[in-house]
Amino acid sequence: MSKITPLAKITVIGVGLIGGSFAKGLKEAGLVKTVFGFGKRELNLQKAVELGVIDAYSTDLQTAVQDSDLIMLSVPLSVMEGMMQEMKPYLKEGVIITDAGSAKGSVIQAAQAVFGMLPARFVPGHPIAGKEKSGVEAADAELFVAHRVILTPTEQTDTSAVVLVTQLWQALGANVESMSARHHDEIFAATSHLPHLLAFSLVDMLNEHQELGNVFPYTAGGFRDFTRIASSDATMWRDISVENSTAIVKWLKEYQASLSQLTEMVEKQDSQGLQQLFLGAKQARDKHIKN
Amino acid sequence: MSKITPLAKITVIGVGLIGGSFAKGLKEAGLVKTVFGFGKRELNLQKAVELGVIDAYSTDLQTAVQDSDLIMLSVPLSVMEGMMQEMKPYLKEGVIITDAGSAKGSVIQAAQAVFGMLPARFVPGHPIAGKEKSGVEAADAELFVAHRVILTPTEQTDTSAVVLVTQLWQALGANVESMSARHHDEIFAATSHLPHLLAFSLVDMLNEHQELGNVFPYTAGGFRDFTRIASSDATMWRDISVENSTAIVKWLKEYQASLSQLTEMVEKQDSQGLQQLFLGAKQARDKHIKN
Repeated sequence: MSKITPLAKITVIGVGLIGGSFAKGLKEAGLVKTVFGFGKRELNLQKAVELGVIDAYSTDLQTAVQDSDLIMLSVPLSVMEGMMQEMKPYLKEGVIITDAGSAKGSVIQAAQAVFGMLPARFVPGHPIAGKEKSGVEAADAELFVAHRVILTPTEQTDTSAVVLVTQLWQALGANVESMSARHHDEIFAATSHLPHLLAFSLVDMLNEHQELGNVFPYTAGGFRDFTRIASSDATMWRDISVENSTAIVKWLKEYQASLSQLTEMVEKQDSQGLQQLFLGAKQARDKHIKN
Repeated sequence: MSKITPLAKITVIGVGLIGGSFAKGLKEAGLVKTVFGFGKRELNLQKAVELGVIDAYSTDLQTAVQDSDLIMLSVPLSVMEGMMQEMKPYLKEGVIITDAGSAKGSVIQAAQAVFGMLPARFVPGHPIAGKEKSGVEAADAELFVAHRVILTPTEQTDTSAVVLVTQLWQALGANVESMSARHHDEIFAATSHLPHLLAFSLVDMLNEHQELGNVFPYTAGGFRDFTRIASSDATMWRDISVENSTAIVKWLKEYQASLSQLTEMVEKQDSQGLQQLFLGAKQARDKHIKN
C-alpha cells in the first residue's frame, strides 16, 4: 500500500461520536494538516477543539467546506440531502466526499437528487462501530480499530477516491470491505435494523399492556440484554426506518413468516420441531458469535 | 416472622444449578439436618456431596423421598409428571412438595393428573434466578439473594405449607411473591418465553438464508446482546414452549399484531408514528431497567 500524502484540509460535518472519532484518529495519525468541523451547535464545536478532536470550526458552511480536500458527512440520514444541497455551491474541484450513514441506498439517492448523479468522487461508507455513549465527548481515535467499514461505491466511482478513503479508514485500524449499496442495505436491514425494531416493538407492547400490569419488575438478565437496543436513540432509528424502509419491510415480512411457522409449532406442541429449531439457532449462534 | 424449626430431611430431585443452590443455601443456613439428593447420574450426585451441596444421595427414588419433610422438584418440565408418579407411593404423610419449574399451570396439571387434585401441601414455585453457567458445579448458596421467587398456591393450598416454603426462600435471601399460576404464566410468556422464541427465530432465519450469505460477521454488539438468549439450552426451551404453549401462543399473536402495525408504519414511512413508538419504548425501558 502506498504511503498517504497528508491532506491539507478535511471537513467533518457533524462532530459527534463517529465524525469526532474519524477526525481525531486522522489528526493523531498525522494524515491531515487541518481538520475543520462544521455543525449547528457552536458550544459542541468549541468542545471538540478543546478535546483536540478538530483543529478549527465554523458554523458557516461555506467557510467549513471551501478548499477542503475531503468531506465526511456524519449527520443523521434525514438531513444528508439538505446538507449536500447547501454545500454544493462551495465545493472545491476534485473534492472527495464520503459519509457514515447506516443506510446507503438513501444516501446515494440524496446525492443523485442534489448533483444529478452520484459524483464520481463520492464514496458512500458505513463504519460498523459504536459505543454506549454518544457525542463528541466520547470521540476516540481507537474507535474503529478492528471494526468493519463498508464502502458502497458504484461502477462510476473514481478508483483513486475509493483507494484514498480506504487508506484513511485502514490508517484508523478498520477493516474495509466493499459491496453494493443494495446488498449492504439488505444485510443491515436483517442483522441490525430488524432486531432494533423487534426490541422497540416488544417493549412498547409490554409497556402499553394494562392487562398484565407493570411487568418490568419480573424481567431478568435475558430480557435486559434482549431489549438493550430499545434504549437506542429514537430519532436515529426513525431516520433509518424511513431511509431503508424497502429492505426493512422485506425483512419484517420474512420474519413474520418465520414467526407464523414457530407459532404453529408451539400451538401443535411440536416438541421435535421446536427442539430442532432451537438447537439449530443455538449452534449457529455459538459458532459465529462470542458470548 | 416466626423462627423456622430445622427440618430433619429434605430431598432435592434434580441436583443442578437451581436445586443445588437451594440445597446448599438451606444447609449453610442450618435449616435442615440432612439434604438428600436424587438424580439419574450418580457421578453428578457424588460431585454434589464433594462440593458440600448435599449431605447424601441415592439413585433409588424410594430411599431418597421416604421420611422426607420437604421435596424440591427441580427437574425439566417434561419430566415433572413422571417423577411425581414414581415418587407417589413413597411419600411421607404431611410432606411438603414444591418445585422450581418455569411454567406453573403445567406443573399443577401434572400434579392433578397424578394425585387426582393438587395436593394441599404442594406449593408450586418459580425462582427467577439463573447464571451463565449451569450444573451443580455452579451451585451457589447466594444465587437467590435479592431475586424474586414466585409462588402460585391455589385456594386449597395449606397455609402452613405456603408459609414454610416462603420462609425457606426468604432465608436464602429471596423476595417471595404469590400470584395465580395463570397470571404467572402470562407474565413469563410475555417477558421471558416470547423474547427467547423471538431470538431463536431470528438467528434461525438468518442462519438459513442462503440469499444473504453468512451475515454473522457483519453483526455488532447490539445483535450479540439481542440474540444472547438464543444460546440458551434448546431442550429446556422446547419444554417451556410445550408446557406453556397456550400463553406463549397468545403473546406470539399479540406480538405479531404489533409487528404488523409497525411494518405498516415503516412501509408508509410514517416518521412521526415511528418516532413516537421508538421514544415511548426507549423511555419505558430507561425508566424500568438498568443498563
